[in-house]
Amino acid sequence: MSSTTNPSELPLAPWARRLAPSAIQDMLQHITKPGVFSLALGLPAAELFPTQGMAEAAARVLAEQGGALQYSATLQPLREHVVALMAKRGVRCSPQQVFLTTGAQQGMNLLARLMLEPGQAVMLEDRVYSGFQQVLDPFQARRLAVPTDARTGIDLDAVQSVLASGERPAFLYTMSDGHNPLGLSLAAEARERLVKLARDYRMPIIEDDAYGFLHYEDRVLPPLRALDEQWVYYVGSFSKILAPALRVGWVVVPEPMVFRLATVKESSDIDTATFTQRIILAFLDSGKLEGHLVRLRQEYRLRRDTLLRALETHLPKGASWTKPASGMFVWVELPEGNDTTALLARALELEKVAYLPGQAFGVQGGRSAAHCMRLNFSNCEPARIEDAVARLGRVLALARG
Amino acid sequence: MSSTTNPSELPLAPWARRLAPSAIQDMLQHITKPGVFSLALGLPAAELFPTQGMAEAAARVLAEQGGALQYSATLQPLREHVVALMAKRGVRCSPQQVFLTTGAQQGMNLLARLMLEPGQAVMLEDRVYSGFQQVLDPFQARRLAVPTDARTGIDLDAVQSVLASGERPAFLYTMSDGHNPLGLSLAAEARERLVKLARDYRMPIIEDDAYGFLHYEDRVLPPLRALDEQWVYYVGSFSKILAPALRVGWVVVPEPMVFRLATVKESSDIDTATFTQRIILAFLDSGKLEGHLVRLRQEYRLRRDTLLRALETHLPKGASWTKPASGMFVWVELPEGNDTTALLARALELEKVAYLPGQAFGVQGGRSAAHCMRLNFSNCEPARIEDAVARLGRVLALARG
Repeated sequence: MSSTTNPSELPLAPWARRLAPSAIQDMLQHITKPGVFSLALGLPAAELFPTQGMAEAAARVLAEQGGALQYSATLQPLREHVVALMAKRGVRCSPQQVFLTTGAQQGMNLLARLMLEPGQAVMLEDRVYSGFQQVLDPFQARRLAVPTDARTGIDLDAVQSVLASGERPAFLYTMSDGHNPLGLSLAAEARERLVKLARDYRMPIIEDDAYGFLHYEDRVLPPLRALDEQWVYYVGSFSKILAPALRVGWVVVPEPMVFRLATVKESSDIDTATFTQRIILAFLDSGKLEGHLVRLRQEYRLRRDTLLRALETHLPKGASWTKPASGMFVWVELPEGNDTTALLARALELEKVAYLPGQAFGVQGGRSAAHCMRLNFSNCEPARIEDAVARLGRVLALARG
Repeated sequence: MSSTTNPSELPLAPWARRLAPSAIQDMLQHITKPGVFSLALGLPAAELFPTQGMAEAAARVLAEQGGALQYSATLQPLREHVVALMAKRGVRCSPQQVFLTTGAQQGMNLLARLMLEPGQAVMLEDRVYSGFQQVLDPFQARRLAVPTDARTGIDLDAVQSVLASGERPAFLYTMSDGHNPLGLSLAAEARERLVKLARDYRMPIIEDDAYGFLHYEDRVLPPLRALDEQWVYYVGSFSKILAPALRVGWVVVPEPMVFRLATVKESSDIDTATFTQRIILAFLDSGKLEGHLVRLRQEYRLRRDTLLRALETHLPKGASWTKPASGMFVWVELPEGNDTTALLARALELEKVAYLPGQAFGVQGGRSAAHCMRLNFSNCEPARIEDAVARLGRVLALARG
């Protein structure tokens, strides 16, 4: 038996040698401590999960389906349910364009692996979901970061000017609803112009719609995929509307992509119908999703409104924030010069309150959002949200003093 | 809405453009038709799954664990169960060296992604699990294929001579028990020499032990990982001993690899404790695995013996086969000149019997095993195995005539 391995002797590819324990992972240890008032993570509310319905579905699947635990082909009826769900988002697609994944994250990962050559460029917003940057890291993809505004979203003039300069990114990654971290829904004209740019410049868009079914206003726009089926690659998920630990999501793509996705998924974790896909199928068959979504939207709307009112009450002058029509997040901008990364340690120490610093969403650790923070409203009950924001207000008042 | 996408217009990386619908997928359609006597696939016996125990575990998890469906950190108690399981395989390791994966396939995939640079060489046997070759494809890894013998396993003189010639593969992939497709268990001296070569030449070994707990003889050897903890990267799975659709496996690696695995897993499908990991944990806590393994080995031993007897009775002279002490497979070699790929269509047509042709296990489609076939004995009940082999015998008799 040889002695304990010295990290410098590990047989690693160069990019993997440079990996450091994630700063966010490190932060999470503090944020998730008992007693912390956390507005930090993008967690759905566990107390709203349809646990009883899931338990019934699991019991039914195991009692009635002999092959429920065996390797088996993709669940055609679940793809048909996804088609019906997509229709409610205003998207027309066929089951042959739907591919089931291990959550939205796998959808993005598999698409990037098929579309991206190492070192190639990718276009993204300069405030972007950190998990998508993780997808790009092993490819050492060149980031073409375009500005994004907390109210109007991705800067389409900037997108156009990058494309007009001759850049041909492998794809653009964006979210048109429930934007993470901005909590933004893109205006109709912006959606149309973005899709037109994609078409004109033959640039694929990976549209991350993980939060798209969580909308809180009367007027809901269809995602980009409703405007184009050739250039928009749609990524959806049951994680935020049913439960994340089931690990089921889907993509909607041109049909000739599907066997390619099956091949890379097979090499990743075997493309087999999983037990949790069967549970979700049984739950959907029971017809309970629609009522569940209504309750979820109602409760999250209440929590959003509670958060927005509390921000009015407790945040100092000079702070501004988004008023999201969808998703789970509010983006707060403090006056320039504030450093929310440095402030987090004090917030935890003095008031046991947590948020995610804007820097966590910067492109390759960029500091342009260093004066911002992302607040989540889905995971805390209303009373706790108020308490958390009052605490945050006290920390910010101190920081200015 | 744009019109249907032309495949040649898909925005694909060059390697993904070359992907064709998998020949095996195509074959599967024929093999899995109702009424076919299939010895083809590596499926465990669904009727032996501990379905009742799983149903109880699932109900318990949902009733008792509020966060069962939520994102949450890795399940430390499940890693401790894996340590105890590994001890039964003769391997000493710590929970800090265990990383939970979405089945063995993901374990191999994540390890390859961390260890392999595009275009680098990898050493493997010239009869090898096709799912591992799929892992290598996107890297366009150069294959250093060494001969392997159905009785004695990987040709260690060849391994040594490749290494002595100056080649430095990113790793060697192998299976020391329940070899897929050969059904072979490596002798003690071969294990020792292989590990010594790895140490001497500082070459990591990825040891795929997906079938390691399925052994049928009194004498069971520990896997390579028991001989070296620095150079052997061990991959294990609950798929063959509990159920594949739960998608839970693990790797045992040097501790500094674990946060790197967490990072690539997070970018792949989020590194969260899954519902099915919790079900397995509850099942293991109930103490039922040991009895289940005893029954599984008993039944699979019976099926193996049935298959071996039937081969004696029905296979023509000149055919030879392995007598596996572990795993799910028997490897049959027909006299050179036979073409089992061509023969499969006739076997299906004339006798509705299926196997996997040796070519499916060749390195990059190589034909050196074109006269061989892999037979599975775990998935069919004994009477059906006898019938299937009688059918296969008739097909082979015709082929000779």
